[in-house]
Amino acid sequence: MVDIITSAANPTLKSLRALHLKKHRRADGRFLAEGLRIVAEAVEAGIVPEILVFAQGHADHPLVARLIAATEGGGGSAIATTSDMLNRLTLKDNPQAVVGVFRQRPMPLDRLDRTTAGLWLVAEALKDPGNFGTILRTADAVGAGGVILLDESCDPYSTEAVRASMGAMFTQSVTMTDGASFFAWLRNGPGFLAGAVLDDAVDYRSVAYPTPTFLLMGNEQSGLPAAYARQCDVRVKLPMHGRADSLNVAVATGVLAYQVIASR
Amino acid sequence: MVDIITSAANPTLKSLRALHLKKHRRADGRFLAEGLRIVAEAVEAGIVPEILVFAQGHADHPLVARLIAATEGGGGSAIATTSDMLNRLTLKDNPQAVVGVFRQRPMPLDRLDRTTAGLWLVAEALKDPGNFGTILRTADAVGAGGVILLDESCDPYSTEAVRASMGAMFTQSVTMTDGASFFAWLRNGPGFLAGAVLDDAVDYRSVAYPTPTFLLMGNEQSGLPAAYARQCDVRVKLPMHGRADSLNVAVATGVLAYQVIASR
Repeated sequence: MVDIITSAANPTLKSLRALHLKKHRRADGRFLAEGLRIVAEAVEAGIVPEILVFAQGHADHPLVARLIAATEGGGGSAIATTSDMLNRLTLKDNPQAVVGVFRQRPMPLDRLDRTTAGLWLVAEALKDPGNFGTILRTADAVGAGGVILLDESCDPYSTEAVRASMGAMFTQSVTMTDGASFFAWLRNGPGFLAGAVLDDAVDYRSVAYPTPTFLLMGNEQSGLPAAYARQCDVRVKLPMHGRADSLNVAVATGVLAYQVIASR
Repeated sequence: MVDIITSAANPTLKSLRALHLKKHRRADGRFLAEGLRIVAEAVEAGIVPEILVFAQGHADHPLVARLIAATEGGGGSAIATTSDMLNRLTLKDNPQAVVGVFRQRPMPLDRLDRTTAGLWLVAEALKDPGNFGTILRTADAVGAGGVILLDESCDPYSTEAVRASMGAMFTQSVTMTDGASFFAWLRNGPGFLAGAVLDDAVDYRSVAYPTPTFLLMGNEQSGLPAAYARQCDVRVKLPMHGRADSLNVAVATGVLAYQVIASR
């Protein structure tokens, strides 16, 4: 049975709108995914929304109908609302047909099975949610197991991160921990740690990356802390031919991750 | 001589704030660059702002003083204002010490000297200014000559694009044209056109990329139009190991551009 909500003052819609704010996401434990494409990717990956909000009049759209059925089949609820209400639920400029409300399912470090993939991406103090989502999307493309965020990083469940991940939020594991816990866990099993730095490093193409490799990227502004770089089994750098001495962190992650899989 | 402006109603500040809007940038021919780092990169590259707006009380900061001197030495003017006025001139959340106002200097296609670099990046209908700025930053890092935007792409001089370029706006050439003009120009001289597509393509690592190579990337949503892909000397693809079938366009550009320079 589909609920219909047409009032902006409706408490359910108000509580969902609040999920754009980090503190509400933290307290609530859920997050929003906007748009047919990303919600369909989730359902395809076997993850159904707890709530599917869709624009009235779109229930007959085949894909929307399929998502409604999947949501209800999984014990969730579907809510029809006006296009205007739906637009107020999203941050996108262009109107969306659906918004999915999903449970946050971070992977605890002590439950992460490193043997399930040959590559894991690790980011230290990553601040920009768009960069995080883009890295998650890259992780999916290279067949990595997931992304591990260290220390004070952005909230991986922000709307901007989910959007940039283009569905990879639902296929990749996401782990949040601190540097000390990560290094202790890493050395308690197999794992080759390759850190991306600017100095005192070898060319990224000169390395044979064993399985599993953990690719460690530093903060957008300050790069990898020296103490973290020292923990790495190898420090790699990308050649820089320009005036500036840096790349966007998501671009650097992509170049390095593709080299890891190409080296095998 | 430094002007001091403390009123939000000041017509100069109002006209500069309007440069955040595309239509005003088009009419005015200038653009904004926020922050010490990017403005300093510009000056280092020999490009001085027409106007430098800085926060009162920061004139003694050595880098600010150097930028004021460079601006005035180049015939531009320096304007001191309050921190509050400066914040209203920027779109950044964090306060900036300076904002530079620069002349747009797009490189006309018929004046672009392709022999000055071994790699040029070309993007078709690129919509996101953050992606454009990130690609420009990558172009700098790989020693490319510049970026050529085809058809209905984003405004390369938007504040978001300039910010994402991290100074590469001042070291790379930026050309805006349409596909037909580009292909006609390309075939009128040396140039190897490598297009990034998903189907009917060879692995990106199997190609020896001649000098100069033009790397052609498609739109974020729809990729490269088939008619454009057919014009390419080679169609390359990145292996996709995940569930989704795509990468962020700036990440894909980075992986391909690094492969082009590595292949030489």
